[in-house]
Amino acid sequence: MTQLQEMGQRAQRAARVLNTISTSKKNEALNAIAENLIHCQSEILEANAKDMEAAWASGMSASLLDRLSLTPKRLNAIAQSVQEVTALPDPVGKVIGGGTNPNGLRIEKVSVPLGVVGMIFEARPNVVVDAAVLCLKSSNASILRGGKEAICTSSALEQAMRKALESVQLPADCIQLVKDTSRNSALEMMKLNGYIDVLIPRGGAGLIRSVVENATVPVIETGTGNCHVYVDNSCDIEMACQIVDNAKTSRPSVCNAIENVLVHRGIASSFLPLMKKALDARHVELRGCPETVRILGGCVTTASEEDYDTEFLDYILAVKVVNSLEEAIQHINTHGTRHSECIVTRDYANSRKFVCEVDAAAVYVNASTRFTDGGEFGLGAEIGISTQKLHARGPMGLNELTSYKYIVEGNGQIR
Amino acid sequence: MTQLQEMGQRAQRAARVLNTISTSKKNEALNAIAENLIHCQSEILEANAKDMEAAWASGMSASLLDRLSLTPKRLNAIAQSVQEVTALPDPVGKVIGGGTNPNGLRIEKVSVPLGVVGMIFEARPNVVVDAAVLCLKSSNASILRGGKEAICTSSALEQAMRKALESVQLPADCIQLVKDTSRNSALEMMKLNGYIDVLIPRGGAGLIRSVVENATVPVIETGTGNCHVYVDNSCDIEMACQIVDNAKTSRPSVCNAIENVLVHRGIASSFLPLMKKALDARHVELRGCPETVRILGGCVTTASEEDYDTEFLDYILAVKVVNSLEEAIQHINTHGTRHSECIVTRDYANSRKFVCEVDAAAVYVNASTRFTDGGEFGLGAEIGISTQKLHARGPMGLNELTSYKYIVEGNGQIR
Repeated sequence: MTQLQEMGQRAQRAARVLNTISTSKKNEALNAIAENLIHCQSEILEANAKDMEAAWASGMSASLLDRLSLTPKRLNAIAQSVQEVTALPDPVGKVIGGGTNPNGLRIEKVSVPLGVVGMIFEARPNVVVDAAVLCLKSSNASILRGGKEAICTSSALEQAMRKALESVQLPADCIQLVKDTSRNSALEMMKLNGYIDVLIPRGGAGLIRSVVENATVPVIETGTGNCHVYVDNSCDIEMACQIVDNAKTSRPSVCNAIENVLVHRGIASSFLPLMKKALDARHVELRGCPETVRILGGCVTTASEEDYDTEFLDYILAVKVVNSLEEAIQHINTHGTRHSECIVTRDYANSRKFVCEVDAAAVYVNASTRFTDGGEFGLGAEIGISTQKLHARGPMGLNELTSYKYIVEGNGQIR
Repeated sequence: MTQLQEMGQRAQRAARVLNTISTSKKNEALNAIAENLIHCQSEILEANAKDMEAAWASGMSASLLDRLSLTPKRLNAIAQSVQEVTALPDPVGKVIGGGTNPNGLRIEKVSVPLGVVGMIFEARPNVVVDAAVLCLKSSNASILRGGKEAICTSSALEQAMRKALESVQLPADCIQLVKDTSRNSALEMMKLNGYIDVLIPRGGAGLIRSVVENATVPVIETGTGNCHVYVDNSCDIEMACQIVDNAKTSRPSVCNAIENVLVHRGIASSFLPLMKKALDARHVELRGCPETVRILGGCVTTASEEDYDTEFLDYILAVKVVNSLEEAIQHINTHGTRHSECIVTRDYANSRKFVCEVDAAAVYVNASTRFTDGGEFGLGAEIGISTQKLHARGPMGLNELTSYKYIVEGNGQIR
């Protein structure tokens, strides 16, 4: 039995315990975790200093260093977000359907935990805590595998959480961190059938692709966001500028930021210069189609076909002039990643057509794509944003970490 | 571009049309299909005769020949079941959640089709029609791949359905059959990312395993049923006998039939002889643990460890005496396939414990596992029984063939 299989077995045992405890007990554990994260502050920050030192020595960029760094204030915020999960309703044990058959058989459809949730991620250390506590609240055991850059921090956070679980007489194995950060351990997790019920990768397009290609366990694809704003012929140009500016520049590194603007030919010559002015102020590089370049002049690079398929996650925006709403929809359904898509329009029929025909988790009319988020969508907290259609789509909260079972009660019915 | 990729592209185009038509239009198509299946009766039965001849020549068993065979009566039943789907509520376009944010953003969660559904199956010709019409009613285009034994029949059924679609001005490509029945076409379907949104295999354990191991498209595992009845210490022995008899012998070839009986030690010596008497009348072969053999005598074979992991789909039953309810639950969670599991008991606490701790799509108290079925569970019709926890669990009806999207409407909101 490999180390990961052993972890899987321990997670299953822990999941069985989680499946039988009350909401109060789970909230007690969450409170204990929040307290212990603060209590272990010095160990956690020391571990983080080690990661930071190694990352700095390896030449990590300033923005990534910032993401990696923990401060007392950030740790406090993490602990507080754990406490906030206690206030969210328990997603498990809800009766979500049912009835009584003519033969007297009583059928009840009840929400249940998924069991063991695997997560592979590359992101900030706080993801370790976020993922672990959302799994805990939904009665799932978690097996977490982060990147090697944050391994000391992640281990310290894991230890603090496991000790808190033990302090309230729950199995520490409800939360396990994979210490082996080699590619092999990720590949093995992807094939840990029989131990992991669901695998959720969070990270860049390369990670997601590797999981989709290699995983034999059920997967929820998350997060790749090649998002568009389509500026319709009939739109309010001011509004379109504000939305494009906000969706591109308020936080370019996140998945609900846009990477493309499609502009109807009829409005391109009046809209594009205004848009360029707004984006120039933020130093956004524009890569345009020939028509865009013609309108805006030589300061705009010509976009390659690849640019329309790229999630820049940076101050870069691909721009294309289209002949019709149909062409815009077709472009989005071809190049988009089914994440968040927006139309800016005053035309009722065009808004309905866009909303119906664009295939994405979230489709916007006259609002920034940046709202695709568990908090904004009323889910309370979020473990990721699904870009697939199976199981969950868009922001995933606690409910999306559950399955259901049918409970059938009779008095001897046979068929 | 391969042939399957071309089929995928055509299916996507057809799915886009299906996504925009009304329920009435879909019902019109279903009625046209039902009528044309009857209208094309002679072509379909002729094609079936070809399949039957080839199957007979290849030495196919009588029971499989019977499954393959179509008669006017059976074709009529198929056509009628198509018509019945018109009466089911449309699963698409339902508003399933939403609200208005403090900033005025209106968020609506609406059910949408999955898009293109792939199905690989080995079963009876009627599955072609069942799958195609359930996909159609849920606005999904379908790519169907059956076994080579039924290829003439399946093709004739596909043609009849496609012509019916054309007769009501819908794209024939809403329904496509893969004519290449080689292993290669199945493998290619499993990796048809970007074309197939969901793949649903229906068939034996070998097919399911191959799909789970090879597929890179999202999969819903179906149908493998290694199901148990646990006969508790405190049960009504008569009832336990009837349930075991019904669950084993009313239709041994289906996935909701049981393969195992677990008996509490305290009741084994009184229950097992009665059970044996009932099952002897149906010529059921028992394979027992040493304790079972001791109680029932030499006429019972000793079960191998493998027997407890085998879906016999036949008049064979594995029997094991257990020391406790805990042992029964542990055995089921280790050897079961998460399909349908039953406890026969008079004890309230034991019934609750079993229902909570057994990990399966359907958990029964005092009723036969044979009720796990879309019709019985109120879903109207069924495209398969999911044994995974992601997306859908247990019988899958029309709702389980949908996803959802968020529609977000604003008047210029930015974040």
